[in-house]
Amino acid sequence: MFKHSQLETVKAWLAQPAHAALPLHARIQRAIRQLILDGALGAGKPLPASRALAGSLGVSRDTVEAAYAQLHAEGFIERRVGSGSFVSEMTEFSPPRRPAPRDRRVRKQAPALSKRGEAMFRSGGVREPLAPRPFAPGVPETRTFPLHLWERLERQVLKEVGTGALLHGDPQGTEPLRRAIADYINLERGARATADRVLVLTSSQQALTLCATMLFDPGDRIFIEDPAYYGARRAFEAAALDCVPVRLDRQGLMAEQIMAEPRGARAVFLTPSHQFPTGATLALDRRLALIEWAARHEGWIIEDDYDSEFHYAGKPTACVQGLDPHERTIYIGTFTKSLFPGLRIGYALLPPALVQPMTVARTLLDGHSAPLAQLTLARFMEGGHFGAHVRTMRSVYAARLEVLVGLVRAHLSGFVEPRVPIGGLQMPCVLTGNLSEHAAVEAARRAGIELLGLSSLHAGGHGKAGFLMGFAAYTPAEMDVAVRKLAQAFRTVVNS
Amino acid sequence: MFKHSQLETVKAWLAQPAHAALPLHARIQRAIRQLILDGALGAGKPLPASRALAGSLGVSRDTVEAAYAQLHAEGFIERRVGSGSFVSEMTEFSPPRRPAPRDRRVRKQAPALSKRGEAMFRSGGVREPLAPRPFAPGVPETRTFPLHLWERLERQVLKEVGTGALLHGDPQGTEPLRRAIADYINLERGARATADRVLVLTSSQQALTLCATMLFDPGDRIFIEDPAYYGARRAFEAAALDCVPVRLDRQGLMAEQIMAEPRGARAVFLTPSHQFPTGATLALDRRLALIEWAARHEGWIIEDDYDSEFHYAGKPTACVQGLDPHERTIYIGTFTKSLFPGLRIGYALLPPALVQPMTVARTLLDGHSAPLAQLTLARFMEGGHFGAHVRTMRSVYAARLEVLVGLVRAHLSGFVEPRVPIGGLQMPCVLTGNLSEHAAVEAARRAGIELLGLSSLHAGGHGKAGFLMGFAAYTPAEMDVAVRKLAQAFRTVVNS
Repeated sequence: MFKHSQLETVKAWLAQPAHAALPLHARIQRAIRQLILDGALGAGKPLPASRALAGSLGVSRDTVEAAYAQLHAEGFIERRVGSGSFVSEMTEFSPPRRPAPRDRRVRKQAPALSKRGEAMFRSGGVREPLAPRPFAPGVPETRTFPLHLWERLERQVLKEVGTGALLHGDPQGTEPLRRAIADYINLERGARATADRVLVLTSSQQALTLCATMLFDPGDRIFIEDPAYYGARRAFEAAALDCVPVRLDRQGLMAEQIMAEPRGARAVFLTPSHQFPTGATLALDRRLALIEWAARHEGWIIEDDYDSEFHYAGKPTACVQGLDPHERTIYIGTFTKSLFPGLRIGYALLPPALVQPMTVARTLLDGHSAPLAQLTLARFMEGGHFGAHVRTMRSVYAARLEVLVGLVRAHLSGFVEPRVPIGGLQMPCVLTGNLSEHAAVEAARRAGIELLGLSSLHAGGHGKAGFLMGFAAYTPAEMDVAVRKLAQAFRTVVNS
Repeated sequence: MFKHSQLETVKAWLAQPAHAALPLHARIQRAIRQLILDGALGAGKPLPASRALAGSLGVSRDTVEAAYAQLHAEGFIERRVGSGSFVSEMTEFSPPRRPAPRDRRVRKQAPALSKRGEAMFRSGGVREPLAPRPFAPGVPETRTFPLHLWERLERQVLKEVGTGALLHGDPQGTEPLRRAIADYINLERGARATADRVLVLTSSQQALTLCATMLFDPGDRIFIEDPAYYGARRAFEAAALDCVPVRLDRQGLMAEQIMAEPRGARAVFLTPSHQFPTGATLALDRRLALIEWAARHEGWIIEDDYDSEFHYAGKPTACVQGLDPHERTIYIGTFTKSLFPGLRIGYALLPPALVQPMTVARTLLDGHSAPLAQLTLARFMEGGHFGAHVRTMRSVYAARLEVLVGLVRAHLSGFVEPRVPIGGLQMPCVLTGNLSEHAAVEAARRAGIELLGLSSLHAGGHGKAGFLMGFAAYTPAEMDVAVRKLAQAFRTVVNS
């Protein structure tokens, strides 16, 4: 009782390679469902007897019966004893396959996203390099990571915890990891941390987004360094904050500008250990002044200590959080740079008043971090492996920085001047010749080399022309090849 | 040149057990730093000569020198050749240790959180049981999970991908997993999915929060089932949406109420496969009517297919997404219930227009999911292990449901009537006697048993008194003990 064309449609559906994974009865069921949804088989229309359809399709009657049974279970057909199967009246709502012209016009006008959704989309988000190549910044060396040790510790954890590691975890983070983090930042960063004030997150980016939404409403003002870390700026812009740029000098953020600003702000964002991208360390008097400002104005200090583990000249300066007796500082750290990005563990050290609200918000954002990774990391830290790994990588990175400085001076001296940082995973270079920043970054890109232009990090896109060169993830040989290519690419541009 | 009291403060600091992990020089440095920060050592004040302090403290002069060097590096002291060390002028900003009385008053008034932060906090978030006990709902059995197989696949992945698994992952999800998910939901759920429309997330909760923020502004209306899944309601309330409850009957959501509602809404939230908590399956005519409504009004259908893998009577009804030719349906799935919660992998199947915006938003929320877990899961699915695991658990859960129904009928018949569901991980029970829902849930809690009251799932807290009993995670023996305890607890309340 199918028309010839309908039978052909069913046969064509069955033959499509995309449907090959489905069992035969499911393919028949879906093909008929599609005829009904398309309106080709209207409500009340009879279906062929299963024996007849089986014959037409060259399949067993049981197969057709299975297809009909599922169509019936889903409400597409009715089966009347003695008279066969009919398309259900339920399908009368079946929507037309194409929207009417008027609908289509509406579609163009209706925004797909909410206003806040638009703000998030417009920020562009934060895309990290999937396969880092010279000189993408912010990426650690992972090729030499002691993966076997890590796997061994994970197996130990699984042996002890068993399937307990498969359950939901504490949204604040597992206690052993929070304790290990508190001990570490107290010891190495001069923080004043306890395990109950640590919130384990997936990344410093998540910490920034949590701060941006939990502490600020759209239009609220925040002081940020100018130039600033792009991830922070995007988190704040995505949350529709009003970012107020504050200039930097060699002592870091010029705190007196904040004191002098009559309109104030709810917070200040800092990378005090080595400022991103300049590498400057924030001077003590400014740290203290900012703490005083935050206490006086009920403001927050958001301290992103993203790569302080890697300091090549003496010990790094202790963090702001440890200097702040007023509990106005939110300290953010991450294992993305000290261990590996795929771990997805970062953290925030919070003032007591924020622990509960931030943890609740985190349950909505992404629930909690995987317990197994957290327990493995806790063990890695407790066993001293973390400290050892950081020490190893610190000397690797210090040597790579030295190599890069030498290469830049040898091959790029006509174009840029390196600004050798005392720490971190990248080095800023300032353009000195006729080459524009845009031309330099584009020439590099064509040569397969990543440079992050400095202008893009400045509010309004101004500031010194130059670029950042990440060095941590690349061997001396890789950097040598890349710098020579870069020199060639720059020469070609200048000479053309 | 320290006062006696200052020297005692330093000594007390050194002796504190909490500081035992710090090297001696770091302890001395921090103790002096604290004196400076507390204002006990004002700007310009001289420090003792290192030799003298070493003598007073009974440590080597080198140790004191190391402490002074770090104090100097951090800007706390100045060292003048020939005249010793002095507290730096930089510390003049050092904040007082206690806020002035006026500041304290301000502190009380100033809200710690933003308005949107308050809304998130007030929602209460979603806390899942860390150590599930009968009859906490929504939890799968994890004690019998094939952990060795999982570990073996993970080792295989690591062997092939090596340290590549440590890098940043695609924020949309690794391609092999997106493909495996698309194949699975096409086959099992009748979806119309392709890998490029799947967004891998940490959980269905994250998908709900993404929808709530990306598609709605505060005050926007959304139709939700009444009663509704608490996680969805909280995600929407946290995002300040106006949730419009729509009643249910045996055929699921009464879609005609939506058609008749003059003010409309931007979306409807559904659990069509087995409604949470009633277990009803949404009828076909209503599905089609809702698709028609969404197409006509540019609305969204948010389809949470949270536990459709577990259907005990015939095959589950295909999902709404596969019926929707207008790309207005967002399909949400999770591995929290079909595998294990600690995996942290869920997903959304998105209309093409939303793939990019949602992925960008996800980079801000938590970056991306750990690549290693994704690749292991992809292999688990490709190898047929996922299908096999679901089939095994389906028959385990079906048997447990039968046991629970028997136990409830045998021991709780004077109190409740079970509403046996055709699928899912929990069974609703309706109170039939004099026992109030509050009294029942409280009596259970005192006996160490978890019951989720049904009233709390209704808008305004009304609706049939009763509770949900999760059964998937508990053995027949555990359920037997718990139901007997529950009967005892209920009897005690009724007789008291």
